[in-house]
Amino acid sequence: MKVALFGAGRIGKVHAASIKMDPRSELVAVTDVMSDAAEALAREHGIEARSPDAILSDASIDAILIASSTNTHADLIEAGVKAGKAIFCEKPIDLDLARALEIRKIAAGHNKPMMMGFNRRFDPNFAAVKTALDAGEVGKGELLAVTSYDPAPPPVSYIKVSGGLYRDMMIHDFDMCAFLFGMPAQVMAHGSCLVDPEIGVAGDVDTAIVVLTYADGRLATIRNSRRAPYGYDQRVELLGSEGMLAAENEIENTLVKSTSAGVVSAKPVYFFLERYMRAYAIEWSAFVDACVDGKNVPATIQDGVNALALAEAANRSRVEGRPVELNSIMTGN
Amino acid sequence: MKVALFGAGRIGKVHAASIKMDPRSELVAVTDVMSDAAEALAREHGIEARSPDAILSDASIDAILIASSTNTHADLIEAGVKAGKAIFCEKPIDLDLARALEIRKIAAGHNKPMMMGFNRRFDPNFAAVKTALDAGEVGKGELLAVTSYDPAPPPVSYIKVSGGLYRDMMIHDFDMCAFLFGMPAQVMAHGSCLVDPEIGVAGDVDTAIVVLTYADGRLATIRNSRRAPYGYDQRVELLGSEGMLAAENEIENTLVKSTSAGVVSAKPVYFFLERYMRAYAIEWSAFVDACVDGKNVPATIQDGVNALALAEAANRSRVEGRPVELNSIMTGN
Amino acid sequence: MKVALFGAGRIGKVHAASIKMDPRSELVAVTDVMSDAAEALAREHGIEARSPDAILSDASIDAILIASSTNTHADLIEAGVKAGKAIFCEKPIDLDLARALEIRKIAAGHNKPMMMGFNRRFDPNFAAVKTALDAGEVGKGELLAVTSYDPAPPPVSYIKVSGGLYRDMMIHDFDMCAFLFGMPAQVMAHGSCLVDPEIGVAGDVDTAIVVLTYADGRLATIRNSRRAPYGYDQRVELLGSEGMLAAENEIENTLVKSTSAGVVSAKPVYFFLERYMRAYAIEWSAFVDACVDGKNVPATIQDGVNALALAEAANRSRVEGRPVELNSIMTGN
Amino acid sequence: MKVALFGAGRIGKVHAASIKMDPRSELVAVTDVMSDAAEALAREHGIEARSPDAILSDASIDAILIASSTNTHADLIEAGVKAGKAIFCEKPIDLDLARALEIRKIAAGHNKPMMMGFNRRFDPNFAAVKTALDAGEVGKGELLAVTSYDPAPPPVSYIKVSGGLYRDMMIHDFDMCAFLFGMPAQVMAHGSCLVDPEIGVAGDVDTAIVVLTYADGRLATIRNSRRAPYGYDQRVELLGSEGMLAAENEIENTLVKSTSAGVVSAKPVYFFLERYMRAYAIEWSAFVDACVDGKNVPATIQDGVNALALAEAANRSRVEGRPVELNSIMTGN
Repeated sequence: MKVALFGAGRIGKVHAASIKMDPRSELVAVTDVMSDAAEALAREHGIEARSPDAILSDASIDAILIASSTNTHADLIEAGVKAGKAIFCEKPIDLDLARALEIRKIAAGHNKPMMMGFNRRFDPNFAAVKTALDAGEVGKGELLAVTSYDPAPPPVSYIKVSGGLYRDMMIHDFDMCAFLFGMPAQVMAHGSCLVDPEIGVAGDVDTAIVVLTYADGRLATIRNSRRAPYGYDQRVELLGSEGMLAAENEIENTLVKSTSAGVVSAKPVYFFLERYMRAYAIEWSAFVDACVDGKNVPATIQDGVNALALAEAANRSRVEGRPVELNSIMTGN
Repeated sequence: MKVALFGAGRIGKVHAASIKMDPRSELVAVTDVMSDAAEALAREHGIEARSPDAILSDASIDAILIASSTNTHADLIEAGVKAGKAIFCEKPIDLDLARALEIRKIAAGHNKPMMMGFNRRFDPNFAAVKTALDAGEVGKGELLAVTSYDPAPPPVSYIKVSGGLYRDMMIHDFDMCAFLFGMPAQVMAHGSCLVDPEIGVAGDVDTAIVVLTYADGRLATIRNSRRAPYGYDQRVELLGSEGMLAAENEIENTLVKSTSAGVVSAKPVYFFLERYMRAYAIEWSAFVDACVDGKNVPATIQDGVNALALAEAANRSRVEGRPVELNSIMTGN
Repeated sequence: MKVALFGAGRIGKVHAASIKMDPRSELVAVTDVMSDAAEALAREHGIEARSPDAILSDASIDAILIASSTNTHADLIEAGVKAGKAIFCEKPIDLDLARALEIRKIAAGHNKPMMMGFNRRFDPNFAAVKTALDAGEVGKGELLAVTSYDPAPPPVSYIKVSGGLYRDMMIHDFDMCAFLFGMPAQVMAHGSCLVDPEIGVAGDVDTAIVVLTYADGRLATIRNSRRAPYGYDQRVELLGSEGMLAAENEIENTLVKSTSAGVVSAKPVYFFLERYMRAYAIEWSAFVDACVDGKNVPATIQDGVNALALAEAANRSRVEGRPVELNSIMTGN
Repeated sequence: MKVALFGAGRIGKVHAASIKMDPRSELVAVTDVMSDAAEALAREHGIEARSPDAILSDASIDAILIASSTNTHADLIEAGVKAGKAIFCEKPIDLDLARALEIRKIAAGHNKPMMMGFNRRFDPNFAAVKTALDAGEVGKGELLAVTSYDPAPPPVSYIKVSGGLYRDMMIHDFDMCAFLFGMPAQVMAHGSCLVDPEIGVAGDVDTAIVVLTYADGRLATIRNSRRAPYGYDQRVELLGSEGMLAAENEIENTLVKSTSAGVVSAKPVYFFLERYMRAYAIEWSAFVDACVDGKNVPATIQDGVNALALAEAANRSRVEGRPVELNSIMTGN
């Protein structure tokens, strides 16, 4: 299976490695608006840096992997559909829910696999929560708590084009809730600027709690912070009628040092590249499974729409200071 | 220091043991509307079961410990104040905030120590969180998460007179938030009936999430469930600008069994008597410190009012489906 | 059941508290060669300080608890037997195995309960290992590892009269091996002086490893150090044919602090009084069970002899630099 | 740097992947007495399966990686030295210490890097122990305990040609002791056959404890079992004058499931391929560092001789039932 990569940045490189690791897929081309980045990555993999058009019109290319900047995702999905390619796209579809819904319509008739890059679904720890929940190991799910703290805030320049914390950062946690509990009925969002005042000046929050209420009474809560001085904190805790499931952080190493000062363990692995390294490879293999073996795509464009709708609801909730019904967000679909 | 105990039930027995353990205090009398219970406890401690009046009018008794049913607390505090006794009272002051505010006024001029039984403040694990936070070990507090699950729901007959989950169960967690973060500006409550439908029929919830918003942007969340099949789950997690503090559960023993089926550790200690055994003794000693050494009372009647006001706000928030300002609750104080 | 206490030192006080805690036993007298210590403890408990003879000849006293210095144990057991008392004696019977064997003979016909204070058998963590092993939860035991480090070495003056590390400190670990695995066939001892050169000058070691070989091939190892800067380290690990059992340390509190410097947990509880507080109370209740309900004594004088024989074998092994057969030690019994 | 691989079995495949992962090294040829295995691996990597001679005489090949069966190691090192190749060789040099010493002599003048595959030195957890010890974080090392259990015993046919547990399995642990504590003065070995009677029939043990005594009084102990039903158990614990270092197992995932049955965590990762996956990659990079950047080889042929000498001493100790001096083993070097 021949694959072309759109985007030669940090996440593009991760995906290039995953493509290489799966013996069923082969990276054959890369493109990036930063031609230097494209050239460098092409050299490293012994492939060609090409133009988007050259890639899309090359019938020998089976699939495209969209890892370029967010504002290009929707157009590239559209172009990929038109070109008849299998499509793997990094989240989100678009920052604008209306545009995402449009893309969903365009993609509806596409007869090739189309997958959204919700990498955390493939993290072995979170996947183990899902497996145990589905197997009924803790009975029926009741209370879900997702904790997700970045080690340090991004530059404010990034914040300004990010779409805001709920769309940019919490979107992964919205997807985790949807992955484990499905879609809620209502969203209540709280947010503050405690980490970097500049983030507040830019109109965004850096510290947030969101509560999701489900039609059947289940509850979920998400905690986000743009700063955790001890590293990337990514945990899920799920109380069910017969027990609890908790996925803890992965740590740098297993050394424990005990001295008169206390018992010291290693910190969580630093950031998403370290924590989700395995998840990215597993995620890619799942896409190849869909392309090669016709398996179901485990993170669909509908999942992308869902996460975006939750982010939209959270934004509205925070601004208006009241719970927002999902129905009101999805109206017009 | 001579002490009389009001209430010979489960929690009364715990306090009797604490009184005995501190060499500075002596249990001299007990009273209970269930005279059998009073007699039994009296026999066990080689003391007298007496009437409330006999106790209150006995000038040799320095302090009363109120561990009788909730609906007697306010009247007994009032009587204790009139009788000039030092007073230790189990939470809550009363289920009715207005009555609690009245009691606060009555108690205002009382020149003896008066302490509310917020036992969790004295749990060595939570106390260690407080100490570390106050010492600046994780910088400024930002996000607080209190988890508090009972092992199993009480009978519905109890639920009906309990004042509801927010006043009966979550009141401890409200106090924990107040203990660590002070009083918030706003309360948003969510609640469901997932554990026992009869609890819903009785008009109460058994599963709840509350979010507290502070004037300076700090956020706190409380999770409650009336059921945790693995036992009493009592944890606190606090993200600060320079790190995180987490107080984990205490467990039954430290045995770890590794077999082909997995690695199995002991469950948390079963319920509050086991978990807070040490806390009750430390709490009592703190009261004796106040009575004997003139130290500050570490859980005041104002703390009792505060927790009740938060519960009141939570009740209103859940019923009205919107955030409630604390100011609106405290109005009229 | 009326009890008299021999020895009002540190461990005597612990036992006095345990006697008080069990409602079936009553402390009625105390004696100590340090009459001040005896008087102080007597005052605290509202009892009498008496002479040993007065205690032994008082027919109303059912049991004696021997917590005086090691060199008095054997004589007091002998006197207690003669006086017809139930006897609880702190380990060891004597530093001299021959004398211990003599005492065993004397005690053989005694028709009252006689128990050795091997407190660790009653530690809930180690007891859980025993229970799981006996229940076959990890199949047949194969490899046992006992770790036992004191937080800091005692003064050399103590070392000089202690009988040496194997008899004084490791005797508890020998009993733990006997408790879990029974008596071995062979002992190989290694020892060094690494902690305090004065201990070496006194002819003793402060760091030691002993390997026990069982007739059926099972193996056990004990590690001892007189110094663990992080506190009292008391662990057991047992590999069986179907799994492993490990009893970990108890810790001061459950606070976990995560900062850029790492993840810090609390240290183990400091020393034996903290770690074995619960064990001492359970141990005493087991003795009362034997006295009052006729239950089996869970740590017999034979157990005391066994531990001493292992210490003796270890001493000989270290001096002679070769494995020593238990048979050769027990010869003459 | 062009590399040829000797041995296309399980460990050969691991090394092939490591060679591929380091951008500075390129796998160009493979050879194996099982030509099918060589062909398969060659196909997978798009390289040639060649004869040993063809490889050794090919001047374009910079380094050989010896991952063939143990009995070929010595001859291949010799041939590699003669051919002027950099050499990476799996442990052990040979099962016979005399032959290993011969090889050491032959290799003495070799002016290319020569490294032994002691992969555990590169495990991030054990490496962290070494780093902390060298940095003085726990003062001076005193007591070392290495635990190393395989999940399940190999077939007896393997045991018969393995050289026995001390040479085949414990050799890694001997190297770990040497890595952390250097070479001891004395070895005392104990061993039993508890796992599989056929192993005993073959003259070997499957359960073993070895104690190493150092000239300066430090002590080390190694525990081995051919069976741990919960998976590969690989831990190191080191008590120093100022604290303890412990490297715990890596686990399959971080899921913790709490139910009425207990709190269940994941097992250790299954076996050496899973546990040491990262270590193999880091190890290979260290060899490339030596070849390309002239860095020191972190596991020398002397390290290989040392581990073998310890195994030899352990064998003799167990057979003769007494401690064996290392000097007596090294005599004749």
